[in-house]
Amino acid sequence: MNATRMNASSNGRGSDAWSQSWTHFSVDRPSPSYCRVTFEHPPINTITATTVAELTELVGLLEQDPDLNVVVFDSANRDFYLAHYDVENEPDRTAALGVGPTGLPAWVDVLVRLSRAPVVSIASIRGRARGAGSEFLLACDLRFASRENTLLGQFEVGMGVVPGGGSMARLARLVGRGRALEILLVADDFDGPRAEQYGYVNRLIADDQLDAEVEAITSRLARFDHEAIKRTKSYVDRVTLPGDSELVPALADFRELFGRPAQRAQWGRLEELGLNADSDLERSLGRRVLEALPDT
Amino acid sequence: MNATRMNASSNGRGSDAWSQSWTHFSVDRPSPSYCRVTFEHPPINTITATTVAELTELVGLLEQDPDLNVVVFDSANRDFYLAHYDVENEPDRTAALGVGPTGLPAWVDVLVRLSRAPVVSIASIRGRARGAGSEFLLACDLRFASRENTLLGQFEVGMGVVPGGGSMARLARLVGRGRALEILLVADDFDGPRAEQYGYVNRLIADDQLDAEVEAITSRLARFDHEAIKRTKSYVDRVTLPGDSELVPALADFRELFGRPAQRAQWGRLEELGLNADSDLERSLGRRVLEALPDT
Amino acid sequence: MNATRMNASSNGRGSDAWSQSWTHFSVDRPSPSYCRVTFEHPPINTITATTVAELTELVGLLEQDPDLNVVVFDSANRDFYLAHYDVENEPDRTAALGVGPTGLPAWVDVLVRLSRAPVVSIASIRGRARGAGSEFLLACDLRFASRENTLLGQFEVGMGVVPGGGSMARLARLVGRGRALEILLVADDFDGPRAEQYGYVNRLIADDQLDAEVEAITSRLARFDHEAIKRTKSYVDRVTLPGDSELVPALADFRELFGRPAQRAQWGRLEELGLNADSDLERSLGRRVLEALPDT
Repeated sequence: MNATRMNASSNGRGSDAWSQSWTHFSVDRPSPSYCRVTFEHPPINTITATTVAELTELVGLLEQDPDLNVVVFDSANRDFYLAHYDVENEPDRTAALGVGPTGLPAWVDVLVRLSRAPVVSIASIRGRARGAGSEFLLACDLRFASRENTLLGQFEVGMGVVPGGGSMARLARLVGRGRALEILLVADDFDGPRAEQYGYVNRLIADDQLDAEVEAITSRLARFDHEAIKRTKSYVDRVTLPGDSELVPALADFRELFGRPAQRAQWGRLEELGLNADSDLERSLGRRVLEALPDT
Repeated sequence: MNATRMNASSNGRGSDAWSQSWTHFSVDRPSPSYCRVTFEHPPINTITATTVAELTELVGLLEQDPDLNVVVFDSANRDFYLAHYDVENEPDRTAALGVGPTGLPAWVDVLVRLSRAPVVSIASIRGRARGAGSEFLLACDLRFASRENTLLGQFEVGMGVVPGGGSMARLARLVGRGRALEILLVADDFDGPRAEQYGYVNRLIADDQLDAEVEAITSRLARFDHEAIKRTKSYVDRVTLPGDSELVPALADFRELFGRPAQRAQWGRLEELGLNADSDLERSLGRRVLEALPDT
Repeated sequence: MNATRMNASSNGRGSDAWSQSWTHFSVDRPSPSYCRVTFEHPPINTITATTVAELTELVGLLEQDPDLNVVVFDSANRDFYLAHYDVENEPDRTAALGVGPTGLPAWVDVLVRLSRAPVVSIASIRGRARGAGSEFLLACDLRFASRENTLLGQFEVGMGVVPGGGSMARLARLVGRGRALEILLVADDFDGPRAEQYGYVNRLIADDQLDAEVEAITSRLARFDHEAIKRTKSYVDRVTLPGDSELVPALADFRELFGRPAQRAQWGRLEELGLNADSDLERSLGRRVLEALPDT
């Protein structure tokens, strides 16, 4: 999954850093001002410690590239954009991720830096994105989604935990209190039309036109002046981004609630039902999350 | 209108406090984690000092119940969810309501505490809700409304007063400046489709499916972990709720403007036209409020 | 283009100040509480130093008129509401505009004061409004737009500059981060349906009903109590308006980026293509702005 095209940047770091072997995504850079990142981590694009580490490295490149105007994140898997975090995969490595350059915990760090990077980040969404997958796309600047093939959600509360990667902070500002509370507390899947209605995504595009329309937007942005993009975005950032201090306590809450025996057992049951696999459970997680609840 | 089913809570207060005789609503508690409150104050569910006192007591119970996850507020009257405050009913008792446990005036207090309670509050809306009735549903966490049978509005400015129960603070954050100003200043009725378009409610549900769909959402929430709900909600609260100090001056303005002779005369004319009764005026209040205006 | 009807105000300034000869718009005042301003600056309603000076004077009148409840801004040109700022028209006069009564630069000053005036301002939109034209309507309180005939946009980033009149501050609060970033960075035209979907306008009205429906809203507002409007609006202002200090740096950025040789050349090419004229370029500016970009 190495990148297939690498155009050198003017800052001397050239294409070497970019064209390294990534394992959870591929990177294509058809021009110095435009880059495409395609998630490909079979079977369902879960996020693991490796994904976080690679995204951290990638965002570091985005931040420092004076030629780059726009980065598109899409998926090689039509059914799964980014499934969610796989908490059972390399738990020691997840625990060891530590903090990123901002001093924030690694996952929060990479999302915060992506939001602030002087580059327009576009999530081109096809398939499912839940939990940390939803948090990733909420940290992108623009979200375009397949009209026919999109399912988004924050299923964490259904599993007895608090979303830890900034969902409350970002959704509350993006869609308003009532709709944010519904997404977060009812914790069910949102299809494309409801996601668009709520403002969870910018707008829907017919599935067979999604790639072409995102490409048109991207090639437009690629030709614009970098400084104009950077400064304009920074003014919107000041009004719309949460402060760092808002993000850390929620992650601590996630960890505390996740560590409880009842929740560990609940996650174990969900694994048995097919979590992290290309399963019916994963295709209908919003509804089927109920099956892992303790009997009441 | 006593509650029909009362399930004891684990905090020792049992069902006694809950199953008292309420006069402006009934309370049903089919399980420890789920409670339904049905407004029933004939003929049109106006809010009076008695409603405020009973809601204050009820919210006190909601706040302190570690088993309760979700409370639904609906109406026994298909045409009126909560008409509005009846200012002519027991004015002395309204004046004597004083302040609630937060130190805020009673009506503001009950709405503020409902918004912050560690319980998901759902307004299941059928019929009309204006003025304080609209303020009540804006203080709930989630708002689902009948597609065919919903009329919402803040008619106060049409009567020469300022909405005093937090409408400006809540609507401005919920639907944005332009649409909040339209709701508040044009002061007309909003039907379901426009309320949904503006974000005044989360979304519409076909009238014949409203109860079943709210029940499905509720039974889902009832099974979730209380601590996960409580903490997740609290993070959204921090971003989206107005500060207390924002709410008090508007209520003072309401009282000052309402006390002017021209406005007293205007309210008197509206009473003569059918205010507080199950009248054509109440069914078309947004439009007919003009009839009480002084001739110009 | 003098005003045709002028009703005296009770503050003694009478109709003299209002009925002066305006050159970029006409003013009609059918009653003391209602005023209509119609932009008419052929060929395409560009904004120039003269427009800013006249709007500054007009807003001064709006601010101090205790009888005026509502002002409607529409256009005599069905194809152009307010094209954009004409930077090549009287550049010396633009540079000499200085600061307004708030101490803010003149264009920012007039928009800030319009937003805070104790009068409901309504943009009744038909045709194109881009750049400063879009900034103007964003500073109005309510925005109603022709369903069939509306094109809005902030094309500045496509020209290598930062919007300088408050777009980032206002759009970010009005439509949320994701949609604000799309409007500002992709910098393309938004037609009516997308503008309504994003909350860029309050709502659309069929073109042949726009005038009548805005008139109905206006005549309603004209009959309401001035003090109730003024105070209610002021509470929404506190929650939704940007602080002055947020607005000045963006204008400085505009000036700095606009002064670069590459951007001067880009604006020159756009002029050659038909900018500021009733041209095909102006009708499709969002798309054709690309033609002025340097070859890459």
